Amino acid sequence: MSVSATVRDGWSSAAAAIGALKSDRVVAVLEQQILSGELAPGTILPTEPELCAILGVSRTVLRDAVRALVARGLLSVRQGRGTMVAQPSDEAFSTAMVALLSRSGLTVAEVMDARQTVEIMLVRLAAASGAQADWDELERTERALMEAIAAADDVAAHAAHAEFHAGILRATHQPALVLMLGPMNKVALLTGTASVRSGTTEDWDLEAHRAILEALRLGDADAAEAAMRAHFERLDRSPIYLDLLDRPFAQAYFRAP
Amino acid sequence: MSVSATVRDGWSSAAAAIGALKSDRVVAVLEQQILSGELAPGTILPTEPELCAILGVSRTVLRDAVRALVARGLLSVRQGRGTMVAQPSDEAFSTAMVALLSRSGLTVAEVMDARQTVEIMLVRLAAASGAQADWDELERTERALMEAIAAADDVAAHAAHAEFHAGILRATHQPALVLMLGPMNKVALLTGTASVRSGTTEDWDLEAHRAILEALRLGDADAAEAAMRAHFERLDRSPIYLDLLDRPFAQAYFRAP
Repeated sequence: MSVSATVRDGWSSAAAAIGALKSDRVVAVLEQQILSGELAPGTILPTEPELCAILGVSRTVLRDAVRALVARGLLSVRQGRGTMVAQPSDEAFSTAMVALLSRSGLTVAEVMDARQTVEIMLVRLAAASGAQADWDELERTERALMEAIAAADDVAAHAAHAEFHAGILRATHQPALVLMLGPMNKVALLTGTASVRSGTTEDWDLEAHRAILEALRLGDADAAEAAMRAHFERLDRSPIYLDLLDRPFAQAYFRAP
Repeated sequence: MSVSATVRDGWSSAAAAIGALKSDRVVAVLEQQILSGELAPGTILPTEPELCAILGVSRTVLRDAVRALVARGLLSVRQGRGTMVAQPSDEAFSTAMVALLSRSGLTVAEVMDARQTVEIMLVRLAAASGAQADWDELERTERALMEAIAAADDVAAHAAHAEFHAGILRATHQPALVLMLGPMNKVALLTGTASVRSGTTEDWDLEAHRAILEALRLGDADAAEAAMRAHFERLDRSPIYLDLLDRPFAQAYFRAP
């Protein structure tokens, strides 16, 4: 898919307005077109010299703008295939969340408090809105987690653990909430990483996941909340966590392999 | 503040490992140092030729890496003053959230549902954890909102409205939650913008803000939740919103002036 004539005309008139701080202006023009969907995912941009000519900017200015949009996950560059409008992804959002928490100076305990607060809200919403298919999916994920731990496969265990919590989020059936709170799973991965390092399976707190699932199947929000609280309380008491709780989030996050 | 000897030594050893996809590797090295705090906010990086020599990369590779880190809010470049480690900010996170929502194809109604869910959780937490100082601050903000509307000053009204909802978030006294949910205010700004366009003050639903504040002062979570629900229900019925609800979020967001 290539760029439409309307978009090209837009660029020509934008060119007139592009003055100082040129690459920021180029970023702004392309950003709005990508976010509004005028430039759809998969669209291949004109070649560099062509685009420079249309926008009336130098190669350096265009390169800077493209690099900024790549860093924000809006464009992707493949060697030999040119520059393309990237598929939507939450990668830039997750990365920005980790950066924000890392630089905040907050401790692991403070981040865990926020995660607990949000997980409790979500499990209550899921109990009210989830359906049979959601619980069956959670059941499969829980089984995958147990099998991964039995097989001492940490990569699979982390994936299944993150997936279990993501499944609770999806069971709220609120798509915008799924998008906005999904990155919390990045933080959940810290949990998994820290736990598996102990080399035991108790730290994974498997009973908690089972209890949460049973309460959800019954649509019992209070029981689901109680099971989620118990999950976090046990985590906070586990020896690995006691060590981490007062450390800066960044230290614990980047300590992970 | 300039770069420490330890960081410089780290760069020299990183240089040995920097191979293919060089600018991504440079980004990774600097990112970890910034997020871990090893490179503190305000630190001025060595000059471009110096840094190229230490890292063993070309000027183009370094420029690409710097531009990517600027786009992610980790570095800032000031002409004549060189490249500096940026102060922490939630700008990149907010921008990424708006991009994610814009490209999701979700409607305004779906985004508003998520916002309502989160605001209800927050107002309940605030009722339980907030203190006198929080309510006094909310009271001042509510007064500023009324004054701005009376004076038909939309810029001030938007600012006060966003500040009112931010004040509820802060009253939870959960700092990590404040960081992670703060960007929802970007979405709140959409509300304000859409309402003020009608040229009336009813759309601002001032009574709702007053009712929320009164329930919070009493520490009554149920009353605070009821007032927040009423606020969103009135919004959903307002003529401006009825027009917007089924439109894609991106369309409504970028329609704002």
